[in-house]
Amino acid sequence: MAESQGAHMTPEEFRRHGHALIDWLADYHTRVAELPVRPSVEPGDVRAALPAHPPEHGEAFADVLSDLDEVIVPGLTHWQHPSFFGYFPANASGPSILGELAAAGLGVQGMLWETSPAVTELETHVLDWLAELLDLPARFLSHSVGGGVLQDSASSATLCALLAARERATDGAATSAGVDRALAVYASAEAHSSVEKAVRIAGLGTDALRLIDVDERYAMRPESLARQIAADRADGVLPCLVVATVGTTSSTAMDPLRATAEICGGEGPWLHVDAAMSGVAAVAPEHRGMHDGLELADSYCTNPHKWLLTNFDCDAFWVADRAPLLRALSVVPEYLRTAASEGGTAIDYRDWQVPLGRRFRALKLWFVLRHYGAEGLRAHIRHHVALAAELASWVEAHPDFELTAPVPQNLVCFHHRDGDERTARLRQTLNDSGELYLTHTRLDGRYTLRMAIGGVQTQREHVAAAWEAITTAASEPT
Amino acid sequence: MAESQGAHMTPEEFRRHGHALIDWLADYHTRVAELPVRPSVEPGDVRAALPAHPPEHGEAFADVLSDLDEVIVPGLTHWQHPSFFGYFPANASGPSILGELAAAGLGVQGMLWETSPAVTELETHVLDWLAELLDLPARFLSHSVGGGVLQDSASSATLCALLAARERATDGAATSAGVDRALAVYASAEAHSSVEKAVRIAGLGTDALRLIDVDERYAMRPESLARQIAADRADGVLPCLVVATVGTTSSTAMDPLRATAEICGGEGPWLHVDAAMSGVAAVAPEHRGMHDGLELADSYCTNPHKWLLTNFDCDAFWVADRAPLLRALSVVPEYLRTAASEGGTAIDYRDWQVPLGRRFRALKLWFVLRHYGAEGLRAHIRHHVALAAELASWVEAHPDFELTAPVPQNLVCFHHRDGDERTARLRQTLNDSGELYLTHTRLDGRYTLRMAIGGVQTQREHVAAAWEAITTAASEPT
Repeated sequence: MAESQGAHMTPEEFRRHGHALIDWLADYHTRVAELPVRPSVEPGDVRAALPAHPPEHGEAFADVLSDLDEVIVPGLTHWQHPSFFGYFPANASGPSILGELAAAGLGVQGMLWETSPAVTELETHVLDWLAELLDLPARFLSHSVGGGVLQDSASSATLCALLAARERATDGAATSAGVDRALAVYASAEAHSSVEKAVRIAGLGTDALRLIDVDERYAMRPESLARQIAADRADGVLPCLVVATVGTTSSTAMDPLRATAEICGGEGPWLHVDAAMSGVAAVAPEHRGMHDGLELADSYCTNPHKWLLTNFDCDAFWVADRAPLLRALSVVPEYLRTAASEGGTAIDYRDWQVPLGRRFRALKLWFVLRHYGAEGLRAHIRHHVALAAELASWVEAHPDFELTAPVPQNLVCFHHRDGDERTARLRQTLNDSGELYLTHTRLDGRYTLRMAIGGVQTQREHVAAAWEAITTAASEPT
Repeated sequence: MAESQGAHMTPEEFRRHGHALIDWLADYHTRVAELPVRPSVEPGDVRAALPAHPPEHGEAFADVLSDLDEVIVPGLTHWQHPSFFGYFPANASGPSILGELAAAGLGVQGMLWETSPAVTELETHVLDWLAELLDLPARFLSHSVGGGVLQDSASSATLCALLAARERATDGAATSAGVDRALAVYASAEAHSSVEKAVRIAGLGTDALRLIDVDERYAMRPESLARQIAADRADGVLPCLVVATVGTTSSTAMDPLRATAEICGGEGPWLHVDAAMSGVAAVAPEHRGMHDGLELADSYCTNPHKWLLTNFDCDAFWVADRAPLLRALSVVPEYLRTAASEGGTAIDYRDWQVPLGRRFRALKLWFVLRHYGAEGLRAHIRHHVALAAELASWVEAHPDFELTAPVPQNLVCFHHRDGDERTARLRQTLNDSGELYLTHTRLDGRYTLRMAIGGVQTQREHVAAAWEAITTAASEPT
């Protein structure tokens, strides 16, 4: 068959190659469980298999596809493998993959309402839908002065929260003259590293970050926060932002929102709630207790791209008042002026984020919410929470292992009672086997295994097999 | 046929729905030329067509697909329409759409080398390939102390350049204690609004931004830059970053790189070159003059997602020295420590960008470079440059119209000789027709039409028809 390489694919070629790739992906998801979760490659191995120079003449798509098998797949850590338990789940469900395809194929820009009205309006709409599904406070809905927006990641949401917080705290000085008064940002010692990254990016410097100590469940101690804020105020430092975490990366610790919000007091520092991993669990009513007090927060985010069946990137970020965010980020050159914007009747999401351009990300979330429905989403969450609870019971019953943190959702943290070295060696043995993949953290100084259960394909048999592999490896002579 | 809505799509269902969506997209690209480029919707119209609440039960994929036709497409501004001449091209070629699909389907994370080695290594590799295709200086290649990374957008690249620049200028104080000395950032008055946005985000405040005046071709005047830097130094202000633009958004003005770099002097402010729109044209050797002096710059970016056949988002960003960038952005909590990172043998791209997580963006660029080859990419660029030159000749020959800027590449700026009001009205009439889409800017205070030629499907007939529509509308009684 004639090939168009070097020239544009014809629609018929796109159809043919597209069908081939869809089939390849269906096969990949069918066989991913048989692949080693982590590849056995060393730095440089993948590059060594690639031609040193780009091709002068176009190549056939079939050759590209076969290199996926020969060069790329052997170099991947397979996040969609049912025995991938590392970091966090990275759900890439069928409907979300197809939603991303639709967005790429339409190739429209959502930086302004005018640049493609449906991109903006669907986004606002599905964020209202998602807020309803999670039973978020009404102040985050778009009919209020707040509303939601999709960010690439919780890191960017935290940065945007900080920028809005600074804008509010300095009454606009931040965007015009810069700030000469010292500002402070507060988060628990277990908060995500993106808080420090945001503090650096915004130019406050790491010294401006106050890491508040945590209780025995790794949750922020409100009384310590209150003390630190009071001390800073006494020193002439302006408290700017408090980040409370609902579900820390290390151990799913839940900072107490209501007590934290009462310290912020509405007039004080901006309260941002980072529920990147855990927030989506609120589709199931029994998990909504973690959000108690959220109606007092200024902003909130959670990541459908972790555990709500939506492929990366898709972070949902809501603010209770959009004005400070827009004041911080809105720059309107002539070439971006539109009648709809000037009339104030339309949302221009470019002013809600760091970049200017925007993909049609809402499409994949819309596909997911419609394909699964509230019912399907609840079942998805409950399935993994039940598996994690069962795994936790096995850990508790085993003489050599010990849980190192409570298991409120889908993450099980545990260690070998022989200590750090033994636990770290165990992890390496297990990951080297290719049969499963775990990551680690430190809790209260102890080296801890993290087993995050949330893969689209992860079933009881995979968790059981992982536990079998763990206990078997632990029983071998060291 | 049984449907899995509410539960996960089976591989067979994914295959069936995927083929249907591929076909739908092939049809969309076939018929997009017949759609009105801009929809005739008012704010709120799209939302009004959507159910107020999310579904309780999962829906059939066929219903989702039919809503694409009924609700979404009528609300889109069609950036892939051959008569879309607004803003900038947003090339979504067949191979890039399929590359995005492959990335979504594999669902792997590239935040660290370890999280999927092939994601990182393919990215480094294709950025070396692209540097070779554009004939960029060797200091940007990965075997140097510099290297390339994909960002979502040139806005983010500019922000990263500013963060690295501040880190270098303050010798690390920026990331630790914050900076108390006043810093200044320089860009031409025609530079993109993302420079101001970055200056605000980084906390310098708009007052820190010096907009340097431009010459009659809208390019930065080096002597004005030199004067401003000297004046700032005399005032105790620390020059931190100079952004030179190669191809401004308004008019493709080219700041003189060599003269600008000589003012920066290697030891002075960081020189970032923003070639978002125009840089990719360097695949054709006759366009490489714009990069003269680039070997003296500290960083550079260009956007394959505009005019190099790669769907949004895909900004290629290179630094000559990665150390200041990494010092500015690297935060390593325990749960992100890996052996490969600690050994220093692998790149962890999370430290090269604002977010932590990363899609497998390199895949689509790899698909594009292989499908087209250098030859195909050159042909693509030359095709549009020739069309723009021809359009410019028609404008010049017409008694009622006048070019308002030189036409070095694919953007034609012109106005009606009757002035701003007439030109603005003309644009509105044309855009309301749905037959073509133009945006505007102001050059030297004059309201100017911008006609950017670069669509994948844009042929001579579309440019000719647009010119016919423009002159016809202009000849009608006002």
